[in-house]
Amino acid sequence: MTGVGERVICIVGLGLMGGSLALALRSDVARSNVPMFNVSRIIGVSRSAETLNAALTAGALDAGTTDLAEGVAAADVIVLATPVRTILRLLPEIGRHARPRALVMDMGSSKARICAAMAALPDGLRPVGAHPMCGKEIAGFAAAEASLYQDRPFVLCPLERTAPEALETVRSLALAVGGRPIVVDPGVHDCAVAAISHLPYALAATLVRTVDTSGDELAWVLASSGFRDTTRVAASDVDMMLDTLLTNREAVLDWLDTFADQLAVLRAALTDGNEAGLRTQLAAAQARRAAMRF
Amino acid sequence: MTGVGERVICIVGLGLMGGSLALALRSDVARSNVPMFNVSRIIGVSRSAETLNAALTAGALDAGTTDLAEGVAAADVIVLATPVRTILRLLPEIGRHARPRALVMDMGSSKARICAAMAALPDGLRPVGAHPMCGKEIAGFAAAEASLYQDRPFVLCPLERTAPEALETVRSLALAVGGRPIVVDPGVHDCAVAAISHLPYALAATLVRTVDTSGDELAWVLASSGFRDTTRVAASDVDMMLDTLLTNREAVLDWLDTFADQLAVLRAALTDGNEAGLRTQLAAAQARRAAMRF
Repeated sequence: MTGVGERVICIVGLGLMGGSLALALRSDVARSNVPMFNVSRIIGVSRSAETLNAALTAGALDAGTTDLAEGVAAADVIVLATPVRTILRLLPEIGRHARPRALVMDMGSSKARICAAMAALPDGLRPVGAHPMCGKEIAGFAAAEASLYQDRPFVLCPLERTAPEALETVRSLALAVGGRPIVVDPGVHDCAVAAISHLPYALAATLVRTVDTSGDELAWVLASSGFRDTTRVAASDVDMMLDTLLTNREAVLDWLDTFADQLAVLRAALTDGNEAGLRTQLAAAQARRAAMRF
Repeated sequence: MTGVGERVICIVGLGLMGGSLALALRSDVARSNVPMFNVSRIIGVSRSAETLNAALTAGALDAGTTDLAEGVAAADVIVLATPVRTILRLLPEIGRHARPRALVMDMGSSKARICAAMAALPDGLRPVGAHPMCGKEIAGFAAAEASLYQDRPFVLCPLERTAPEALETVRSLALAVGGRPIVVDPGVHDCAVAAISHLPYALAATLVRTVDTSGDELAWVLASSGFRDTTRVAASDVDMMLDTLLTNREAVLDWLDTFADQLAVLRAALTDGNEAGLRTQLAAAQARRAAMRF
């Protein structure tokens, strides 16, 4: 296969997601597996000179700048890798500074509002929404790693105006970093990730608050691997998760209600000592969870 | 230090907990670290000849039997390592077959009802409740490992009738397998573990049920490490967890209510778009969870 030309890529935001993308595009995996996506130059944009230095030192970037307009103006592909509301705030500015025909993609955790905002970008630009399904509870470039996207679903949300070749470019980028691209409608994405990401986060944070506000100090002493894993995502970056919950509010509220209904069923069975009913629910959950493959 | 004599130990139930105890008592850690607890012989009791064979093949046992009376009658220390209600059912039988002066301990997940049942054992026997704070979502001897108890809290619940030397024997057993013994009142234990083990399990099982009953197939496709970890304990052995919830019902119900109250606070802030209130809760959870050390 032959490449489709060398590209300058600008990654805005060099935290866990953006930093990992830069490292992944640099890695042997990207160079050897997918010759379709060629990167000639990676430019990083960050508010923090310290982060830029760390990324440059790690060899993740060819150049770094704190000036968004400067970074964006030099790029064929612009990747927004910040919390969702920062993406929404930056998009008009991207529209003013990007080259004609530049591809604009993001990696935000909710998609409907971002795709709507992308639809308002100037005609010459080529927007595509995206969301790789991976993460960690540790934020920042220090947590970034080239393997973050490996074998994980990489959601692509083309807009009505997205041309096939723009979608193919993002698909080849997803493949280049080891991801498994999957095209999904933004609203359908937002509902599904509310169930498996935003709801679990809300529950984990609430579980930590429940134990914390109880003042039961022994509970923390006895906490073991079960509590550790159940609450892990409660340590996630608050700015990122606040943006995610607030920009996907309706879906999260719906799932919170569905969860509350299910919890009431379990609570009733326990209250009544309804062993058969309780066993049915727990066995169904056990079978479903044990069948999961990651 | 000198040993306090060689002992025959009988472990009833060779699943994750009992199997790991046998393996741990056999390991170099036990032999080198704590000369106080000497085991001359480990007898395993299981309903399953297959499990006994697996444990004998792994070198975890000196002898195995499916006959509870036979195993118990030969032992100085009897360890009940079955689900809680099986322990409650077996205790009278243990009372009939155990040697005079035999130490009877358990490793059940709730302690109040077990300790109450132990109090009714014949006078000559020496009961002590116990609960090591470790586990896995995989059950059975195949999941057992010598390091399971390493550096984990090992709760000891002496009864009123428990003599100091009996408590010391169980403490030395806990140390021998690498655990960190801690003496706790049974009711206080049950409240604390309801918060950090039984409640998280109920939430994890309910989260799996919530997504499963919704019919949202995409959610399972997109599920990532966050969902995997938040729901891990939902795959736990159903018999064990059913016993645990039903024998610690009041404490679990109390924590379910406290959790529901906290979740309502988060839900209200999200509904109202109360960003400051939401941030306060999420930041408090983030700080508390990030400060945890395991």
